[in-house]
Amino acid sequence: MESATLSRIGLAGLAVMGQNLALNIAEKGFPISVYNRTSSKVDETVERARSEGSLPLTGQYTPRDFVLSLQRPRSVIILVKAGAPVDQTIAALSDHLEPGDCIIDGGNEWYENTERRIAHVSDKGLLYLGMGVSGGEDGARNGPSLMPGGHRQAYDNIHDILTKVAAQVEDGPCVTYIGQGGSGNFVKMVHNGIEYGDMQLISEAYDVLKHVGGLSNSELADIFAEWNRGELESFLIEITADIFKVKDDDGEGFLVDKILDKTGMKGTGKWTVQQAAELSIAAPTIAASLDCRYLSGLKEERESAAAVLKEAGLSDELGLGLGRNVSGVDKKRLIDDVRQALYASKICSYAQGMNLLRAKSNEQGWNLNLGELARIWKGGCIIRAVFLDRIKKAYQRNPNLASLIVDPDFAREMVQRQAAWRRVVGLAVSAGISTPGMCASLAYFDTYRRARLPANLVQAQRDLFGAHTYERVDRPGAFHTEWTKIARRTGTGVGALN
Amino acid sequence: MESATLSRIGLAGLAVMGQNLALNIAEKGFPISVYNRTSSKVDETVERARSEGSLPLTGQYTPRDFVLSLQRPRSVIILVKAGAPVDQTIAALSDHLEPGDCIIDGGNEWYENTERRIAHVSDKGLLYLGMGVSGGEDGARNGPSLMPGGHRQAYDNIHDILTKVAAQVEDGPCVTYIGQGGSGNFVKMVHNGIEYGDMQLISEAYDVLKHVGGLSNSELADIFAEWNRGELESFLIEITADIFKVKDDDGEGFLVDKILDKTGMKGTGKWTVQQAAELSIAAPTIAASLDCRYLSGLKEERESAAAVLKEAGLSDELGLGLGRNVSGVDKKRLIDDVRQALYASKICSYAQGMNLLRAKSNEQGWNLNLGELARIWKGGCIIRAVFLDRIKKAYQRNPNLASLIVDPDFAREMVQRQAAWRRVVGLAVSAGISTPGMCASLAYFDTYRRARLPANLVQAQRDLFGAHTYERVDRPGAFHTEWTKIARRTGTGVGALN
Repeated sequence: MESATLSRIGLAGLAVMGQNLALNIAEKGFPISVYNRTSSKVDETVERARSEGSLPLTGQYTPRDFVLSLQRPRSVIILVKAGAPVDQTIAALSDHLEPGDCIIDGGNEWYENTERRIAHVSDKGLLYLGMGVSGGEDGARNGPSLMPGGHRQAYDNIHDILTKVAAQVEDGPCVTYIGQGGSGNFVKMVHNGIEYGDMQLISEAYDVLKHVGGLSNSELADIFAEWNRGELESFLIEITADIFKVKDDDGEGFLVDKILDKTGMKGTGKWTVQQAAELSIAAPTIAASLDCRYLSGLKEERESAAAVLKEAGLSDELGLGLGRNVSGVDKKRLIDDVRQALYASKICSYAQGMNLLRAKSNEQGWNLNLGELARIWKGGCIIRAVFLDRIKKAYQRNPNLASLIVDPDFAREMVQRQAAWRRVVGLAVSAGISTPGMCASLAYFDTYRRARLPANLVQAQRDLFGAHTYERVDRPGAFHTEWTKIARRTGTGVGALN
Repeated sequence: MESATLSRIGLAGLAVMGQNLALNIAEKGFPISVYNRTSSKVDETVERARSEGSLPLTGQYTPRDFVLSLQRPRSVIILVKAGAPVDQTIAALSDHLEPGDCIIDGGNEWYENTERRIAHVSDKGLLYLGMGVSGGEDGARNGPSLMPGGHRQAYDNIHDILTKVAAQVEDGPCVTYIGQGGSGNFVKMVHNGIEYGDMQLISEAYDVLKHVGGLSNSELADIFAEWNRGELESFLIEITADIFKVKDDDGEGFLVDKILDKTGMKGTGKWTVQQAAELSIAAPTIAASLDCRYLSGLKEERESAAAVLKEAGLSDELGLGLGRNVSGVDKKRLIDDVRQALYASKICSYAQGMNLLRAKSNEQGWNLNLGELARIWKGGCIIRAVFLDRIKKAYQRNPNLASLIVDPDFAREMVQRQAAWRRVVGLAVSAGISTPGMCASLAYFDTYRRARLPANLVQAQRDLFGAHTYERVDRPGAFHTEWTKIARRTGTGVGALN
């Protein structure tokens, strides 16, 4: 094979995501070689490259031919299932790779696996990137958000390709070098956790509008379309409007109503919640979205719980999903309140995600640039939203911002929306419509903004039964008190004390 | 040393917990040898044994003498800091132990460490127990709740000791063989997670009564003392009443008000939350209590957040901890409502903990007896409460109970209390007093009891952007829809659809 015919980059793993990303790269003018263990996938991709405009894409049928068809230093993107398949693919390819060549894992991998592999391949002088890729099949084909972390040199080798392949927004391509080690995977993991939160909050807005406001799917489609022209403008709000427009095949009613209310998931949401706990970061909105996916899976249990509690005297008026309009609710005002509640809750959820990223960055020395992360999420990925530009600016104004909640602009917005936010949560609480995400966000806001919490009582309890000692507000030091002795000594009731 | 003088059991690690447990064992008539690396602790313990009634306790100053002073098969309880110290102590002792002898770790150990040690010591033919010990210093001395897991034979060897040493309640001693492996540590971990939840919920009740109801510490002492005579009767409610009675040394006001609102913690609460996520169990109330400990630690951040948000226009009336009585609140009714909200929230928290235990038991094949666990928590431990007898009975009635919430008795109680519960949460939400635990419990209840959740929308979103497919309510199978194509085809707005 003469060097003239060598490809600039290679991609192994030709499921839909892989095929689309390969075609995207080829379309941007970078000759690419593709490989898949099942050769039919290779033919499929070659055929698509031809039909979609004879793109510069070459199919390869053995790991050796695949690797040898690439310019050096070689860069190979692998898009296979996270875990063992990645190790197998690395093994198959690294036999033929040479020092200086690089492997780029584009899957949703646990960041520690990437760090293990970085160490492993470095024995052979190979470079490695763990690159989060967000945007689904469509994003892969037309411009994803890319979160590459690992060897800086490996990033520089393909910087020109990534910047053209990534989604483009007014302030640049949605890609940046994230940091060392598994930082790219970790950032993608938190991105997914935030995505869980957004989807949960939107489903709660839908639930309240439907069961408290009595809105129809047609009205919901209009409302979400309208919201997508304001502060909530985002991919998830946009597609939600579309979803409410789709009628069922058989023409009877809307498809969304025929979908079983059991939510699937991958591991990233769970990892986000576990990492938050590990790093002492409160992430209740993201955790609530994970819990709701778990509870949604217990469909049969929920059905019998609904029956048992009805027998126990729970009234239907407590919205057991009967789609009734709760009487006395001003529909127009409810819609406006829910929009504000959704936005304020969303800010709290992003504050949690960003604080988790900073905590991990400090622990690992990744030097993550939070503003830059918000920027590359503005396009291509599932959480893309106009609102991310405001987060970018908040961190540009103050890179050491303790929380998005205390950024002057966001603080003002939260305060302006809190009345509506409290009305929606209060209404849902009294109507029995659970809004775990909105409640968690509001409780997070109300806890974080309080100079004095009732934690003093918890400390007193811990000192009483565990002699854990406590600090005082008025002088330094650790103190212990014989609470029970003293309290019992005072004898009958505290009246005597006054 | 003649066998006549041999001790029945040994205890190594003579911090307060260790000393107290050793004295408790000796007091029950079981000759015990004690050892500590720092010999002064040995002398201290020997002196206490003498002064507290010349109890049958012998001090030993080397691991060898300590081990050789014990009857065979030897049983040695170690009470040292979890982690490395435990491994070091095991190493020091096992040189002198013989096949059939047993090591019992009484610390708050991560259950996988115990399973690692069980495998390790079995090479030497040694038996091992990981035994959760709850009740603090006082419980250790006068009767703790014991959760021993590991080798059954090792448990049988000291069964007579444990049953006398443990707290005694009307239906027996607060100890039972938990199960194989690290089950004893895991059960203690969840016990602690539930304890976190109880303490958080009580602190929220305090917060609402103080800042919404305007109650004084004297009134709070009376209220909690009164609550301790009803359905909430428990150790934590009892000590809370005591805490509100204690005046500050300098006589000015009450001590509880001088305590810094930063809460410390050990690892067990964090592990509980991480394990719940790992096992797909929703445990939002326990998670909320962990988050509040994390947020309480950010004292300085909270103080500046309060300032920033005040500048941004947040009114003081939104209870920024100013202790004002929210006008128009019926104090008497609020107190009664808070009691009911606390009780209902507590049931949800215990339901989460019990479901986590069952999920782990199923995963590990531990065959945990949930009713029996509730029984041994009735005395000795921090969460001891009258209410645990009802949990015991619920699982005796139906060992396969899906959730405490659907037990007929608890279901009725939740339904009876829900109106008050919703009033309290609604009031706190509008007053800006965060009640994360009560909110999480209520959202958990309202999610679990709903036959139909808005998860159908989440599934539609996942199918739209990730082709994850969805199930239908009306027929089996996995379905995928080209949502956007169809929605956009319908053209301008959904009006056209109707």
